[in-house]
Amino acid sequence: MRPIWLPGNGQFRRFDVVQFTDGVARRIIAAIKEQIHAGAYQPGDRLPSTRTFAAEWGASRTTVTLAYGQLIAEGYLLSRAGTRPIVAKGLGAAAPAPAQISAPRHLSGFAQRLLALAASALPRPATTQPAPIADFRYGDLAGADFPVLAWRRALNRVSLRRKPRLRYGDPQGSPALRSGLQGYLWRARGITCSPEQIVIVSGSQQGLDLCARLLLDPGDAFVIENPGYLLARHAFAAAGGIARPVLVDRDGLTTDALPPARLAYVTPSHQFPLGGVLSATRRRALLAWAAKTGASIIEDDYDGEYRHDVAPIPPLQTLDPASVIYAGTFSKTLSPTLRLGYLVAPPSLIPAFAEAKRLTDRHTPLLEQEALAELLAEGAYERHVRSIRRKNSERRAVLLQALAEEIGPSVTVEGADTGLHVVAWLKDVAAGREPAIIAAARAAGVGLHPVSPLYDPAGLRPREAGFILGYAGLDSDALRRGIALLATVLAGQR
Amino acid sequence: MRPIWLPGNGQFRRFDVVQFTDGVARRIIAAIKEQIHAGAYQPGDRLPSTRTFAAEWGASRTTVTLAYGQLIAEGYLLSRAGTRPIVAKGLGAAAPAPAQISAPRHLSGFAQRLLALAASALPRPATTQPAPIADFRYGDLAGADFPVLAWRRALNRVSLRRKPRLRYGDPQGSPALRSGLQGYLWRARGITCSPEQIVIVSGSQQGLDLCARLLLDPGDAFVIENPGYLLARHAFAAAGGIARPVLVDRDGLTTDALPPARLAYVTPSHQFPLGGVLSATRRRALLAWAAKTGASIIEDDYDGEYRHDVAPIPPLQTLDPASVIYAGTFSKTLSPTLRLGYLVAPPSLIPAFAEAKRLTDRHTPLLEQEALAELLAEGAYERHVRSIRRKNSERRAVLLQALAEEIGPSVTVEGADTGLHVVAWLKDVAAGREPAIIAAARAAGVGLHPVSPLYDPAGLRPREAGFILGYAGLDSDALRRGIALLATVLAGQR
Repeated sequence: MRPIWLPGNGQFRRFDVVQFTDGVARRIIAAIKEQIHAGAYQPGDRLPSTRTFAAEWGASRTTVTLAYGQLIAEGYLLSRAGTRPIVAKGLGAAAPAPAQISAPRHLSGFAQRLLALAASALPRPATTQPAPIADFRYGDLAGADFPVLAWRRALNRVSLRRKPRLRYGDPQGSPALRSGLQGYLWRARGITCSPEQIVIVSGSQQGLDLCARLLLDPGDAFVIENPGYLLARHAFAAAGGIARPVLVDRDGLTTDALPPARLAYVTPSHQFPLGGVLSATRRRALLAWAAKTGASIIEDDYDGEYRHDVAPIPPLQTLDPASVIYAGTFSKTLSPTLRLGYLVAPPSLIPAFAEAKRLTDRHTPLLEQEALAELLAEGAYERHVRSIRRKNSERRAVLLQALAEEIGPSVTVEGADTGLHVVAWLKDVAAGREPAIIAAARAAGVGLHPVSPLYDPAGLRPREAGFILGYAGLDSDALRRGIALLATVLAGQR
Repeated sequence: MRPIWLPGNGQFRRFDVVQFTDGVARRIIAAIKEQIHAGAYQPGDRLPSTRTFAAEWGASRTTVTLAYGQLIAEGYLLSRAGTRPIVAKGLGAAAPAPAQISAPRHLSGFAQRLLALAASALPRPATTQPAPIADFRYGDLAGADFPVLAWRRALNRVSLRRKPRLRYGDPQGSPALRSGLQGYLWRARGITCSPEQIVIVSGSQQGLDLCARLLLDPGDAFVIENPGYLLARHAFAAAGGIARPVLVDRDGLTTDALPPARLAYVTPSHQFPLGGVLSATRRRALLAWAAKTGASIIEDDYDGEYRHDVAPIPPLQTLDPASVIYAGTFSKTLSPTLRLGYLVAPPSLIPAFAEAKRLTDRHTPLLEQEALAELLAEGAYERHVRSIRRKNSERRAVLLQALAEEIGPSVTVEGADTGLHVVAWLKDVAAGREPAIIAAARAAGVGLHPVSPLYDPAGLRPREAGFILGYAGLDSDALRRGIALLATVLAGQR
């Protein structure tokens, strides 16, 4: 028992804090509540004296006094100085037991749109486990590529840096990280911005969601690539936006007939999923459209670090920093589980982003932000990017070679210049065969993921079966075995 | 140079990846782009041969070939097999330079409400640094209280647990953490729920924001305590909700005239900021209102771990798990910078929460989730809670004693039974004097934070000056010195 001092009647008096470790007081409290709820004690009823109660229960009077005190604190009992406590009003059996009446809960328009989108998406696979031999799921990285030691060292340094006070951080993100990122973005992507234009977000998905909330009202149109990134479309549609799908070809988004819209979501460096690089002409056309209509452009540079036979492709943002919100991520270079990304936004939009971030989740966790700032400051992040870029170039070469050798001319490969995936179209195999091929591949231990769900559900879909082959999560052996098995599966399907 | 294999003309050919480390190719690329943008090269113009260009620039032909290749990849140039590349269409000087035309960007209703709320809030202090001698800011914790070693050990164990694949986690949160939390909630708070009812969120603020988005449409009413937690009110108001402030007294929210609403936000275990415990009678009344109207109740149990002279107060959720969404946090026991919290929601709402979490940020970072699951599994978290509860009981006793000794009868202390703060009302000091007192205290090295901004802006405000004294970030010495300085400041103000 530790004495503490509490105010009471204008005085401070000593009070002994008791931990109810023996459970008797707890049981007494529960029993009295039950009797009150069942109506055995009615409002206004006076409880037995602590002496009587203690005798009935074979408990000490102290325990009963504690139990009564707790019930007074919770408002079940009212205390009368010097006399026995009475049951408070409104607690009798006459009051309805609320759990029994269960009116349907109202859901907002956002929630209803969200659930409709989830229902309309492909049924989730029965298991989310990767297929055992080779799962070509896009977005996964190989665990062996993660810089475990550098990250651990950075975490240790950060968690040993004791701070006198633990307090909420800056909603825009750690100043050290934003300053390190500014330099990195300039060196790696040619982006000129101030740290004040950077907002650290919990993965680029949060960046897209913030854009949706800040820029779209229900009924507003948004331009989206067709086919395109599903979770971007869903974020804008859940906010109430109306999708205006625009077809993409090998040069990215077609820009000859852009409809009026509040915003356009694009992947200019490496169109997702088809892999085209948005041509310079189209970049100009898109920016001219934005300038004319006042639309914002969201540039998702989700895998800009990976190019395999070209120099870095400068972001759209560098051409028009006033119209473009640039979204970057560490999910493709470190790990999707870290939930670290960033936006580079025009200064005029920063107050809205900072306030939205504050109300949404205060700020992104400081631990990862500070560890990443360490890696950036010491150059370890860029060394890691060079190393993982090389590894993924090798994976890609193995994959392309395996495709050529095992499946050969019956497959068309698209989008292989940059990024961490290719699209493989199966010549003369109808799209309707995709489910059967996926099931047969899964049975053989290979995870396949179709392109077709990334097309606008209301528009035309490709006639050929097509699959997104993500390779960043697989080693050379798995890549070769996966493609060999796929060849067997396809031969069996013909 | 590393050879890789690329498809081309139906064949795979060897390609050497060149890193543009010498910068010459980069400069050539930039120079050609500039000339195209300036109109020196017009669309359709043919570029010099690589030989000519190389001679002009004193560069190697390989470098120029690489530069041309990059410009072709970016769409500035079109290649013609065997001849010199030509400038693509639509790139001439005639096209508008988009950065010069800057139409105002459209902001959503959400963004506009957000910015209006931020503008209406108190002006942020010029410095966000804590006052040097004693800052009574609520929400800060003492750095020395953080379980540095246990946390570091847990982080190391987690980051050494190599996974073969890095992939997005469960939007609802790590199964290990949810299962550990289920047991903890049962032991510590008497909550019976399944791990499927738990959603791990990035701090309880995110939980409130998700509730706002899923349960409120613009124009929907919400009940909020008056005075109450500002960032909750802002989250609901930014979603378009219309605040229906309901007065609180020493027994928490008054329930005799609850207006119709979609949801009610309450802090039953320790009303924020005034500190009352919602009485049993009012709990029943609130639940009956929810059952009758179909409203959801959000119970923010932000500091339920801290009670100083009473046993734990059972959450409202235990009385009606079908109406109550319970929000908990680790910001008051571990650190506000971790951004870890959770919701316990009725099963019917879980699909909406899971989908919303997925679209919002995929999931909360796995690293902290897994480290916390370790602490819970080995009992270290509960040991830590006991230890920090004891420390904060001591801080509270020191604070109350200092208040009694230094300021005495001219101060009324409210809400000291539980939590990490008290409210101190200055008898016979008008609320209008708050800014002067805050400034004088700041000059003396003491940070003071008024209660008045937590009152509904449209309603009555208290006549007396009142301050929230958070004590969890301060040691005994700072608490005593802070209150002694405050006494001097107040004496000077009278």
